[in-house]
Amino acid sequence: MPTIEQARAWYADSDPVHDFDHVLRVYRMAERLAESEGADLTIVRAAALLHDAEGATPGHESRADHHHASAEFAAQVLAAEGWDEERIAAVQHCIRAHRFRGTEAPQTIEAEVLFDADKLDVLGAIGAARAIGYATLAGTPWYEQPSHQFLEIGKEVEGEAHSAYHEHLFKLRKIPNRMHTVTARTIAEERLRYLDEFFERLIDEWNGKR
Amino acid sequence: MPTIEQARAWYADSDPVHDFDHVLRVYRMAERLAESEGADLTIVRAAALLHDAEGATPGHESRADHHHASAEFAAQVLAAEGWDEERIAAVQHCIRAHRFRGTEAPQTIEAEVLFDADKLDVLGAIGAARAIGYATLAGTPWYEQPSHQFLEIGKEVEGEAHSAYHEHLFKLRKIPNRMHTVTARTIAEERLRYLDEFFERLIDEWNGKR
Repeated sequence: MPTIEQARAWYADSDPVHDFDHVLRVYRMAERLAESEGADLTIVRAAALLHDAEGATPGHESRADHHHASAEFAAQVLAAEGWDEERIAAVQHCIRAHRFRGTEAPQTIEAEVLFDADKLDVLGAIGAARAIGYATLAGTPWYEQPSHQFLEIGKEVEGEAHSAYHEHLFKLRKIPNRMHTVTARTIAEERLRYLDEFFERLIDEWNGKR
Repeated sequence: MPTIEQARAWYADSDPVHDFDHVLRVYRMAERLAESEGADLTIVRAAALLHDAEGATPGHESRADHHHASAEFAAQVLAAEGWDEERIAAVQHCIRAHRFRGTEAPQTIEAEVLFDADKLDVLGAIGAARAIGYATLAGTPWYEQPSHQFLEIGKEVEGEAHSAYHEHLFKLRKIPNRMHTVTARTIAEERLRYLDEFFERLIDEWNGKR
């Protein structure tokens, strides 16, 4: 099993939204979900530490295929540690299936746990921080009143910025329904309530009303 | 009186933490405080729109003297609009006195209102967004457990990052006591409670505990 300090080195070049702090949060949440859901803790821990480590594999720098690059890198790391094929394949399945719009859906409780732990990190106060951090890096506003078209079909009109609030409405509000485990769904619903209130308050303050 | 659309052009090159959205929030909050405190609304509005407009004056790009550059620029803009000297000087005093560690303290209710409105923008959900946005741009973490030395004397030990949470403890928590008007102090206390809870929650989530 790789150590946390080994894992830190795989994330040296990452951006602030997918950095090693994100990996550590997913790791701790995945442990919590695994314990509650009866998943194999070693598989889940290895998958969590390796799930975004595509930066450690040369030539794989796009986010689009990062789950494949990370799965390949995981196989190298775990084989060098003497893991058997079956358990390496189990970790690789977790990593490939953790993408929101991936083609491979989680088939095992370990993969469900990693998927859910990764998505929970976009909700709550952490989710607020990540949405704001992402908009800041992308140069898009934190808040802009969405157009009627965006509110109805989720597509911006010409010239409309995709603000952090747009991302909240379009993507983050749907997360609880995408959870695989009951434990994660309960946490997601509570974190979403917080995030809803965060944006409600942000908008009130934006308009000098609170 | 300059229009909001004129003012927008003065802030074209600003960073996301001091951008025109910040100016508009200060403008709306300053109006609210001016009405409640009986300040001259026209002086306050002009000062709010012009308070960070140093970017419009060539050669003044450091934040250190930005209040002087903005005050000079304000005089040019308002003189061109036919304002008399006394009212221009009143606006300039507001702008020069709005700095947190400035040498010129607010002497008029209008200057107090601008100072307070500007500082309120670092508290509440907006304050959380600005602290996170600033840390993201600076490449510092959103949260790192502060050292005992930092908690005692506000100075980091060697190698300790000044995270957004450090900024919260070191600077943001002191804001309510720096308010000049009663209206702003009440708003600041409520916004600080929210910001305290935001970080408390962020830390719990960081550790997989919520």
